[in-house]
Amino acid sequence: MSAILILGVDPGLNRCGWGLVLSNGARLSHVAHGVIKPSPQQQLASRLHDVFEGVSAVIAQYNPHEAAVEETFVNSNARAALALGQARGVALAAAARTGLPVAEYAPTTIKKAVVGAGGADKTQVAFMVRRLLPTAGDVSADAADALGVALCHAAHGGFRRRAEAL
Amino acid sequence: MSAILILGVDPGLNRCGWGLVLSNGARLSHVAHGVIKPSPQQQLASRLHDVFEGVSAVIAQYNPHEAAVEETFVNSNARAALALGQARGVALAAAARTGLPVAEYAPTTIKKAVVGAGGADKTQVAFMVRRLLPTAGDVSADAADALGVALCHAAHGGFRRRAEAL
Repeated sequence: MSAILILGVDPGLNRCGWGLVLSNGARLSHVAHGVIKPSPQQQLASRLHDVFEGVSAVIAQYNPHEAAVEETFVNSNARAALALGQARGVALAAAARTGLPVAEYAPTTIKKAVVGAGGADKTQVAFMVRRLLPTAGDVSADAADALGVALCHAAHGGFRRRAEAL
Repeated sequence: MSAILILGVDPGLNRCGWGLVLSNGARLSHVAHGVIKPSPQQQLASRLHDVFEGVSAVIAQYNPHEAAVEETFVNSNARAALALGQARGVALAAAARTGLPVAEYAPTTIKKAVVGAGGADKTQVAFMVRRLLPTAGDVSADAADALGVALCHAAHGGFRRRAEAL
């Protein structure tokens, strides 16, 4: 089984986290992570374009095999859901543009995969991400969430291993 | 004052309408319109990418000066707001990518500009769009909404005329 380079994305209009994890059988290793921060002074369309370009640049630089994005938690706040939806749509389109298969995981699925409990809070996720990927060093909250999505996708076997298992 | 070619977009994940209106002083004329329809069989990321590519292709073909997009109506349905937000974000990013200035108008502003009443229904908007742009011929509801946004932007003077007035 060959190694899979997985890009995890935590979409956001002000801070869009990304993280790359190499999954090689049971071994997981940190490759890179970062946060795309569109300038808040710009108009909405330009900020969304910055997210698009940022995700596209990460894909062009690292050439991952697969991508994973957190499913947005839709609560009663429709305005927040709309704003997040816009950033999320752009991140998904940027990944699909390069032909990357894109997986989506619910927040509880990610927490369960990383921490072992679907009800874990963000601090626990960040703690376990740093523990599972010790070479990652100092990881901000947004990048930790993105690395968490990538770890979740690795735990679920990725697209390739699922296909091989059929 | 030179003529302005305005692209109006009515974002949607299943049907994304677009329309081009040439505004030359008080004269308005229809240039083109259409609907981008991503295949519903595809995964979400691919459908969003189709919207991005579709809007980008229209801009590349017609080279408009300015773009206008309807502000999404955020009601209590957070799930619908999220889905629409994703398509909207992609349309905005596609326009911003080419350096187009993008205006946003509330639905009531568009209705008021096209029909004269902010509480008008979609049928009235479509009726007035066909009347104001008689050469448009048969226009579907999604394309009529997109042409309505472009007409609204023309009625508000566009970016250039506003800048000239300063």
